[in-house]
Amino acid sequence: MTRKGILFVISGPSGVGKGTIKDAVLRKINDVQLSISATTREPRTGEVDGRDYFFIGSSAFKQLIDQDLLLEWANVYNNLYGTPRQFVDRNINQGRDVMLEIDIQGALQVKEKMPEGVFIFIAPPSLEELACRLITRGKDAADSIELRLAACKWEMEQVKHYDYRVLNQDLDTAVDMVSSIIIAERCKIKNLNMGCDMIDSSFNQGFNGSGQ
Amino acid sequence: MTRKGILFVISGPSGVGKGTIKDAVLRKINDVQLSISATTREPRTGEVDGRDYFFIGSSAFKQLIDQDLLLEWANVYNNLYGTPRQFVDRNINQGRDVMLEIDIQGALQVKEKMPEGVFIFIAPPSLEELACRLITRGKDAADSIELRLAACKWEMEQVKHYDYRVLNQDLDTAVDMVSSIIIAERCKIKNLNMGCDMIDSSFNQGFNGSGQ
Repeated sequence: MTRKGILFVISGPSGVGKGTIKDAVLRKINDVQLSISATTREPRTGEVDGRDYFFIGSSAFKQLIDQDLLLEWANVYNNLYGTPRQFVDRNINQGRDVMLEIDIQGALQVKEKMPEGVFIFIAPPSLEELACRLITRGKDAADSIELRLAACKWEMEQVKHYDYRVLNQDLDTAVDMVSSIIIAERCKIKNLNMGCDMIDSSFNQGFNGSGQ
Repeated sequence: MTRKGILFVISGPSGVGKGTIKDAVLRKINDVQLSISATTREPRTGEVDGRDYFFIGSSAFKQLIDQDLLLEWANVYNNLYGTPRQFVDRNINQGRDVMLEIDIQGALQVKEKMPEGVFIFIAPPSLEELACRLITRGKDAADSIELRLAACKWEMEQVKHYDYRVLNQDLDTAVDMVSSIIIAERCKIKNLNMGCDMIDSSFNQGFNGSGQ
């Protein structure tokens, strides 16, 4: 009788602040399960297997790829990262909503495998703003920022594949918007997964209870 | 460049509390225009034409019906009530969202004329609860309540024609849910009405601003 969970994918260009938004939303709505990635890189101090990541070896990772058990995967600085489908499926089948924070290329891969997910694009108010954030972060040399802005142009065009767009002009407003999207999606008739069953049974209860 | 407004239809069985929810939502989100009905009944003390209702004569009302200028209409105790399409259209074309609070039969009529509206069904937690509310209101004799519960069974089945269902178990929660639906709908890609135009122009600004 419980509804199926919903997969929420929070995505957007690098540096747009999607990680900060995701953290704040999870503090506000605490019955959403964050998706846990699998990776071949070594655990850092304090990281716990099964909480921060599923730490697995390269051959195990390649097996997940071969058996189509990843919603998406990518090679980042010679480490493999991916989203195990089973973890997401299990939570959804148990009626728990799952949140996945991921870059745009990853989100597009996920959409191919789970088009029924809810895809939220976090957008910078403008490219200038994004450039400013990338510079402020101080992680990147100036030329790398130029390259990333060029990539960002392609990324921004992908918004058309998403369901929602949230402008990250102000953090609190953006967090409210993403939270609202989660609450609204839970109210959608098509996500209630009860058809007329629950209504009918509540009616029968009503009529029996109030009855003749 | 401004987006078109969205029509939000708040509807549900009689006595479910949709009027109270609508008032609270409009206090929270004050850039939504409440739809104003036309009626043939006489203004009551304090009612203002064009604010509370459009007060018009029977022949003018019948003309609106004949010219298909009402989104819905009904005869209530020999007075005619209806929703002028022009008022809704004008606000939407100017980019203002419109809220319409209406019974279920009215909502189904509106859906035929404006299927692009967002239809929100306010539901009682159970029929027993609804019966209790109708009794508490004290407006109706016991047998009239029985009749209304029977009508309500039909009404509850109409939820399948709506986009969202909000359970009115707790007023604050229900108000939050409806507000969330409004905020979320405003973030929908399909409601942004900008395609790639706005993105491209913000890009150009970005590139001009940051560059050469």
